[in-house]
Amino acid sequence: MRVSAFRVPAASPSDVSGVAALLDAGSLRADEVVAIVGKTEGNGGRNDFSRELATRALEELFAARLGIPREGVGDRIVFSLSGGCEGAASPHLVVFARSGEPLAERRPVKRLAIGIGFTRELRAEEIGRRAQIEETAATIRRVVDWLRVDSPADVHLVQMKGAIPPFTYEEARAAETAGRPLRSDMVFSRGASALGAALALGEVAAESLTDDAVCRDFSLHSGVASCSAKPGLTRTEVVVLANSAYWDGDLAISHAVLADMLDVRSIHRVLGSLGLTPDVQLSPVQAERVIGVFAKSEADPRGTIRGLRHTMLTDDDVSDTRYSRGLLAAVLASVLGHGAVYVSTRAEHHGPLGGGTLAVVARLPEGVDAP
Amino acid sequence: MRVSAFRVPAASPSDVSGVAALLDAGSLRADEVVAIVGKTEGNGGRNDFSRELATRALEELFAARLGIPREGVGDRIVFSLSGGCEGAASPHLVVFARSGEPLAERRPVKRLAIGIGFTRELRAEEIGRRAQIEETAATIRRVVDWLRVDSPADVHLVQMKGAIPPFTYEEARAAETAGRPLRSDMVFSRGASALGAALALGEVAAESLTDDAVCRDFSLHSGVASCSAKPGLTRTEVVVLANSAYWDGDLAISHAVLADMLDVRSIHRVLGSLGLTPDVQLSPVQAERVIGVFAKSEADPRGTIRGLRHTMLTDDDVSDTRYSRGLLAAVLASVLGHGAVYVSTRAEHHGPLGGGTLAVVARLPEGVDAP
Amino acid sequence: MRVSAFRVPAASPSDVSGVAALLDAGSLRADEVVAIVGKTEGNGGRNDFSRELATRALEELFAARLGIPREGVGDRIVFSLSGGCEGAASPHLVVFARSGEPLAERRPVKRLAIGIGFTRELRAEEIGRRAQIEETAATIRRVVDWLRVDSPADVHLVQMKGAIPPFTYEEARAAETAGRPLRSDMVFSRGASALGAALALGEVAAESLTDDAVCRDFSLHSGVASCSAKPGLTRTEVVVLANSAYWDGDLAISHAVLADMLDVRSIHRVLGSLGLTPDVQLSPVQAERVIGVFAKSEADPRGTIRGLRHTMLTDDDVSDTRYSRGLLAAVLASVLGHGAVYVSTRAEHHGPLGGGTLAVVARLPEGVDAP
Amino acid sequence: MRVSAFRVPAASPSDVSGVAALLDAGSLRADEVVAIVGKTEGNGGRNDFSRELATRALEELFAARLGIPREGVGDRIVFSLSGGCEGAASPHLVVFARSGEPLAERRPVKRLAIGIGFTRELRAEEIGRRAQIEETAATIRRVVDWLRVDSPADVHLVQMKGAIPPFTYEEARAAETAGRPLRSDMVFSRGASALGAALALGEVAAESLTDDAVCRDFSLHSGVASCSAKPGLTRTEVVVLANSAYWDGDLAISHAVLADMLDVRSIHRVLGSLGLTPDVQLSPVQAERVIGVFAKSEADPRGTIRGLRHTMLTDDDVSDTRYSRGLLAAVLASVLGHGAVYVSTRAEHHGPLGGGTLAVVARLPEGVDAP
Repeated sequence: MRVSAFRVPAASPSDVSGVAALLDAGSLRADEVVAIVGKTEGNGGRNDFSRELATRALEELFAARLGIPREGVGDRIVFSLSGGCEGAASPHLVVFARSGEPLAERRPVKRLAIGIGFTRELRAEEIGRRAQIEETAATIRRVVDWLRVDSPADVHLVQMKGAIPPFTYEEARAAETAGRPLRSDMVFSRGASALGAALALGEVAAESLTDDAVCRDFSLHSGVASCSAKPGLTRTEVVVLANSAYWDGDLAISHAVLADMLDVRSIHRVLGSLGLTPDVQLSPVQAERVIGVFAKSEADPRGTIRGLRHTMLTDDDVSDTRYSRGLLAAVLASVLGHGAVYVSTRAEHHGPLGGGTLAVVARLPEGVDAP
Repeated sequence: MRVSAFRVPAASPSDVSGVAALLDAGSLRADEVVAIVGKTEGNGGRNDFSRELATRALEELFAARLGIPREGVGDRIVFSLSGGCEGAASPHLVVFARSGEPLAERRPVKRLAIGIGFTRELRAEEIGRRAQIEETAATIRRVVDWLRVDSPADVHLVQMKGAIPPFTYEEARAAETAGRPLRSDMVFSRGASALGAALALGEVAAESLTDDAVCRDFSLHSGVASCSAKPGLTRTEVVVLANSAYWDGDLAISHAVLADMLDVRSIHRVLGSLGLTPDVQLSPVQAERVIGVFAKSEADPRGTIRGLRHTMLTDDDVSDTRYSRGLLAAVLASVLGHGAVYVSTRAEHHGPLGGGTLAVVARLPEGVDAP
Repeated sequence: MRVSAFRVPAASPSDVSGVAALLDAGSLRADEVVAIVGKTEGNGGRNDFSRELATRALEELFAARLGIPREGVGDRIVFSLSGGCEGAASPHLVVFARSGEPLAERRPVKRLAIGIGFTRELRAEEIGRRAQIEETAATIRRVVDWLRVDSPADVHLVQMKGAIPPFTYEEARAAETAGRPLRSDMVFSRGASALGAALALGEVAAESLTDDAVCRDFSLHSGVASCSAKPGLTRTEVVVLANSAYWDGDLAISHAVLADMLDVRSIHRVLGSLGLTPDVQLSPVQAERVIGVFAKSEADPRGTIRGLRHTMLTDDDVSDTRYSRGLLAAVLASVLGHGAVYVSTRAEHHGPLGGGTLAVVARLPEGVDAP
Repeated sequence: MRVSAFRVPAASPSDVSGVAALLDAGSLRADEVVAIVGKTEGNGGRNDFSRELATRALEELFAARLGIPREGVGDRIVFSLSGGCEGAASPHLVVFARSGEPLAERRPVKRLAIGIGFTRELRAEEIGRRAQIEETAATIRRVVDWLRVDSPADVHLVQMKGAIPPFTYEEARAAETAGRPLRSDMVFSRGASALGAALALGEVAAESLTDDAVCRDFSLHSGVASCSAKPGLTRTEVVVLANSAYWDGDLAISHAVLADMLDVRSIHRVLGSLGLTPDVQLSPVQAERVIGVFAKSEADPRGTIRGLRHTMLTDDDVSDTRYSRGLLAAVLASVLGHGAVYVSTRAEHHGPLGGGTLAVVARLPEGVDAP
């Protein structure tokens, strides 16, 4: 089994012409596509309709190609679209397809492996609490098992679209009165999703994951999670990317934990582990090898970056989400030489406070092995 | 004569405690201060009141120290405050003071020199046209002459606060009817100011500078201009920074033209010319030597950066000015290791289309000469 | 022939459940629907994807019901969706259907009549100029003729989605160099569309409509136009609403020109002409009769409303479009008692400077005739 | 003793020329001014620097006139400046002065009375809890006693600038860990301030005011509170406006509780109680009598207004604070005929959920008595 992956620019949220062209050219088979992760140009918040528009356009495309109703496409392909293309960030899709039979025997080198999964339907009162963490972890473990990795250390990215089940104003007040205020929002869904990944991969001790720890004890975190939560979604969608000796192809993935938003050295380190060694910026030829860059950004809640005050969290005109996504996208683009980067923001339990996670999928140069 | 310069963080627009501490400590003498260039955390637009608040607080401080009325301070010190601290950018002031007597003879090496000037009062109908360009150029030339530089190539930064004289709705309609629509806005004032610098320093041919060329023929540009225009200002304020053999001290300045917003190599080149050679990011010790970083950013009006679409100019929620400032500030911060950078935006005739200008003032390492 | 019309709330841009319910209940027949005019909750600007999402969802619904491809629906039904539901404004759709045969003879009273039309494909260089005005006027005249009104005074609303053909940066620069800068933007498309309505209905003299007059001579205006322009649209879509003695039913329309954004008296006058006479606010029973309220708002470019300064045009954080829509929607809602109002903004040549247009479609009370 | 009051437009936040003109003309004496309540054109949020700029300009003016240092002015005059002039709202100041001796005996009619007070310094951990409520109530009671009103029902406005003492990130985490998360923010400071007014005036039972009730049990509320909280302020500033038989002059105040943001009937009722009876809008002559209009707005947290969905709380581009202020300002302006209204937003415990408070100060027509 092998993964193929393509980076496709989008002229607008509903532009699926690039994916259609790949299908038409035979580079991609509709029935082999398992996940599309991408950035659309909305605000990334509750009224970001660019994601729904893009999803709908992709569903329509694949419904026609697969000969199934539009509503059924989401059960076969995970669409993990995240809003917010600030500054250098350029709207694009990364399409992952899977082909061939599972390998019966290990190969001497590892290659990119991909799997998807869905949690059961979650209830609003479970979000941001132990229940969500455990269900998310169980789902991730099932996918990881299926990928046949040597160890959890071979998992480099757990990309999630976190559930945020809807609720009424009255339900919220009732829960508050009952002393268990609902946490069914972006903040808690992202936080618990990341802790789910941390639990699944042994990054944190199970007993530390109390309800109280969620979005409070930030010493607990995952180095490979990337969750973007979606209001209205009732189950969390999971895509796991790892390197496995039972998979074939020319792709590999690597990751690093970003200590803060200016941690350029870690970016260089991830690229280096994939055989890409820029002086200060990748050459166009090197950049061509990079298919997907997935990162989580954060406006440090302590109000400073390396001791200097930032104003991202005290600006009531523009959300910190837009600023920090733009910031990390620019830093990544300064090394890559272009802005086709997936940066999703607010990194609760994704790397340390003020930091984030970073994973890169690349076509390996001759003679370089997956990390 | 020698220049001393200090970088001072600001806890809010009206926070002048850092400057007051320098005065109290005797590191700075109020009567030697000639210019304060800084970033405040407003939106950088018409309703950015952070600049006026900061200016007022600084004026009040210096009025008390100099024993003069607040209203008179602006004739002695140029306050070039620019709004917009997006993402990594941190609010700060750079204070320039000048002490000692003019040197009678050349020294073998050059050092940072600074001078200030003011255009005459400009009329709304002159803005964005030949009249503004010429008056700006004449003012710059007077200051440059006074600095005693060897050649225009020794001028590395012409920092301007461009005039935007006020006018009424009726005056605007009348000018439009007369076929000479007013250009008294930020766009044209910045553009004509940059062309004024280009004219003064011989970067463009005088005859190419027609009214029609302003904000249209972007092949004409300056590599050292940095103009931020201010609604209501009736004269342009000019600060010129150069290296001169008739000046003393341990500071020097260097500059580069940024080809685009991801032009990291030029950032490294400027730092290198001042003896600062980061691998991928300055060390804290190196970063300490950098006093001021002054740059102009731009959302490329062609809608792409290195061939990939950006969305800065099609977003009607957040201005491109905020995005591009945040983008360039992040790229600069990724090299410097911190966000105390002055980035002002929209770079009409400041460097090539989609690019900008960059100047750095630093304390020279032992054995390194000014460029 | 008769018009039926329904006001349907929308829980989100893609929520078409209300329209589907009307179809399911038999209150509405898919093949009789001619126009859907509505407000969606985007920003109303270039990156407002709520309109496209809503249109797509409606197209999909009608494609299924009509048994035709989604792409063909727009040729049968005009979808005039406008973004921006600020403050009291509530997202909703007004669905217009037409049934029965044309009446052979006049009836003694007039009733609501509706017709739609499309201009030919327009080129970017025609927008905002005489060519667009004339083509728009010709299209409107064809529709008006078909409605068989007694006089142009019976036309109370010309609802338009104005064309804004795309163009490249290079084409724009070339046009500028050629001395005919492109005007293919929202401002000019709205302005020329309104003048097209004014020309078609004899509100202005044909010879006054020079290229130079567009968006400059605001003494020229229409009292019944309502245009919202859409980037990328290559032909203008037109819906005409009038009262005609050759139409049947229980609906009628009336209109007024708003002198400014606080012109509450004109709102009362329009309602009164339809038999609805609130003391200060419509009773719920009266409000039920009002099906559609269509208005154009404007932040007075002179910077004041009734002599007091407004700040809508000097705020660089939030667009004046959002403020003025919210303002007029609130004023309308204060009279109607609810916020299901269609307010579209920037009213170039729609009513006088600082004012706008207002049309109301209502179910006539017993014994009241159409104006 | 008598109150004089003036409404003064502001051309910018730092424009105090209108107040200076009143002082120069002798209409106002600097030493008689006790409070200035006004709207400035910032965003009303944390980074609204227009308030500080206006305050500073006013302090500087009064320092010069009173011959005292700028820092001491705030102890003599309460400056209650609130940011946010959306839509029809026009930046302005209402200046209140007090002159003459206290009356020894009751007069047969009541007139406007004004008093100011300050709470003690509050600590961050007290905000939003019983401690703040009680201290606020005690302060209000002292001022009310001094005004010599017949009953609490004669108090029509308690205008407050609520304290929000600063704290560090570490202090916040420590408080959270201790199970008493800090509430030192705008939401809780406004809520507890309103409850303080409700307690002082007997609008709610003292025992119902538990810590838990704050910003949770919205059945508890004041009908006369108007609080706008200010980050960094360490004591709450209070201005009480009432009608008293021991005060003289030609001014009076009246108030109403707004049931929701479209409650136009209550606006008419307040005006009527002051002898101002518009048909649908005040005539210019009537409007001239209205000196100050003070209201609190709210985007109903249940997401609807009169059963129709609003989008103010699900918009991540523009704050609901801007929308709801603009909404209520427009509704008020539609009745008044102009936009010189003070609307401050988020009305926690100010009137019922989704509603707000409204007070009007007017010059009484001949033969009309204060309510």
